[in-house]
Amino acid sequence: MEKFELTILGCGSAKPTLKHFPSSQVLNVRDKLFMIDCGEGTQMQYCKNRLPFNRLNNIFISHLHGDHWFGLPGLISTFNLQGRTAELHIYSPQGLETMMKPIMDYCNYDMTYQVFFHEFDTENPIVIFEDRTLTVTTIPLKHRVPTCGFLFEEKMGLRHILRDMIDAYEIPIAYINNIRAGEDFVQPDGVVIANEKLTTDPSPVHSYAYCSDTKYAPEIVEQVRGVDLLYHEATYAAEDALKAEKHFHSTTLQAAQIAKDAEVKRLVIGHFSARYTDENELLKEAKSIFPNTLLADEGKVFEMID
Amino acid sequence: MEKFELTILGCGSAKPTLKHFPSSQVLNVRDKLFMIDCGEGTQMQYCKNRLPFNRLNNIFISHLHGDHWFGLPGLISTFNLQGRTAELHIYSPQGLETMMKPIMDYCNYDMTYQVFFHEFDTENPIVIFEDRTLTVTTIPLKHRVPTCGFLFEEKMGLRHILRDMIDAYEIPIAYINNIRAGEDFVQPDGVVIANEKLTTDPSPVHSYAYCSDTKYAPEIVEQVRGVDLLYHEATYAAEDALKAEKHFHSTTLQAAQIAKDAEVKRLVIGHFSARYTDENELLKEAKSIFPNTLLADEGKVFEMID
Repeated sequence: MEKFELTILGCGSAKPTLKHFPSSQVLNVRDKLFMIDCGEGTQMQYCKNRLPFNRLNNIFISHLHGDHWFGLPGLISTFNLQGRTAELHIYSPQGLETMMKPIMDYCNYDMTYQVFFHEFDTENPIVIFEDRTLTVTTIPLKHRVPTCGFLFEEKMGLRHILRDMIDAYEIPIAYINNIRAGEDFVQPDGVVIANEKLTTDPSPVHSYAYCSDTKYAPEIVEQVRGVDLLYHEATYAAEDALKAEKHFHSTTLQAAQIAKDAEVKRLVIGHFSARYTDENELLKEAKSIFPNTLLADEGKVFEMID
Repeated sequence: MEKFELTILGCGSAKPTLKHFPSSQVLNVRDKLFMIDCGEGTQMQYCKNRLPFNRLNNIFISHLHGDHWFGLPGLISTFNLQGRTAELHIYSPQGLETMMKPIMDYCNYDMTYQVFFHEFDTENPIVIFEDRTLTVTTIPLKHRVPTCGFLFEEKMGLRHILRDMIDAYEIPIAYINNIRAGEDFVQPDGVVIANEKLTTDPSPVHSYAYCSDTKYAPEIVEQVRGVDLLYHEATYAAEDALKAEKHFHSTTLQAAQIAKDAEVKRLVIGHFSARYTDENELLKEAKSIFPNTLLADEGKVFEMID
């Protein structure tokens, strides 16, 4: 099975605690790593989880509150100390480059690699990254500043070749790509060999949606419908719904309601306020609406289940 | 005894490790806290060491390499989330405000308190802070960018009143401050009561010098002569002296030589390169020249010994 797994590096909210680091996580898609948010201390957490720096080329920042990006200057400097040469691409709402530029100008005057900032509009969903295997689309959220979540969708893979059949029908190598893409094979004598005889189904495609920070935003339900895994912030317990509303955050019940309405496979809640000593209480609340809920925690790895 | 103690929050060098945080420490002088350097993760370390945020009003940054100040944006933001009202003063070489301003403009648009940046010239020693009990003077160092260490010197305290004697001689309260400052008391009948009869010696004054980052710089010896505690970087082992020279850092032996030549009471070495797995070897090297050497480590507290 192709790898598609999420590692939590930090799932606390803005105020520092002894339990959690601020927001950051890494999605591993077939051994390419994608970082989502980069709070203070992310590079230490990255090392602690033994993730390889050389497989990380793309970082997605949901919004410009400090607990979601203050780890970037350190990470960028460390890459420089390591003599990185690969380009680093950073995707964020407007404003990050303005803040990072003076730091990079001073601290990284001898940069060994290039950093590219891609700033996106947060009003409507946009595809901000695409390669052979994956697309990343923004999910407009409702927070105090322009904010987007991210939808990671694996592309349908190519069909798997049945080597024995290819040999049996003496199919030239030049036709293989078309056959993997689903085409039948037409022999020189005009006989059609159905694709199903030559291939098996491609590996399942996976999807992951990250939604933090946001107040309850039912308009995102259609965009995250049916994803394998939804990370949704649950900064507050149900009884603190008024605080959640005031600070543009969600409660456990609201996160679970989004998961239920979108019929996702699994929900992970995180971005916990420092005020709750027992996060299992938060989990219980979310499970009362969406049973297949899990708690985020530093170092936890969520593999996609087919 | 008046409190004068140092807590290490981070004593690693620039590359992140699993053992150390980047540079930061806090000097407690009679329950006023002074932070020296503020690497990434400092606010978490500060909380972990249960230091009170409301006693911290002054932060001293030695130089503008990221591992010495990338924790500032998070700390400043957290103070804001806590609704701090007291002024925060930050002392550094030229350039910090230029880097911090765009971040503060974006992230802290609703600041509850004021931050003042005081940028100092690094060529010559300057008194950059003074209050009733303490002066802080810069120690020009030799690094790849403008860098200063800091010399913290307690002022001579007032003498301690012998309450019984004050009562016995019926000395009015208005005279007490002069007597604590060392004056004799002249009775209405002209008889002089010697100060030594009325007071005991003031508490001892303490001094602390922080020297990081720097290559071997014997010219600082006179400035740090006789301090109670010297923190001197020892990024490299003796065998890596060429690397130390090249990167404008010091070896264990060089740090110890400074301590020996300056006849300080105790030396603490820190800013360890990530390459050394056993820091006790570094300690051994330093002790071969200056026996009263100690290893820095996160959470270690060094009280001044009278």
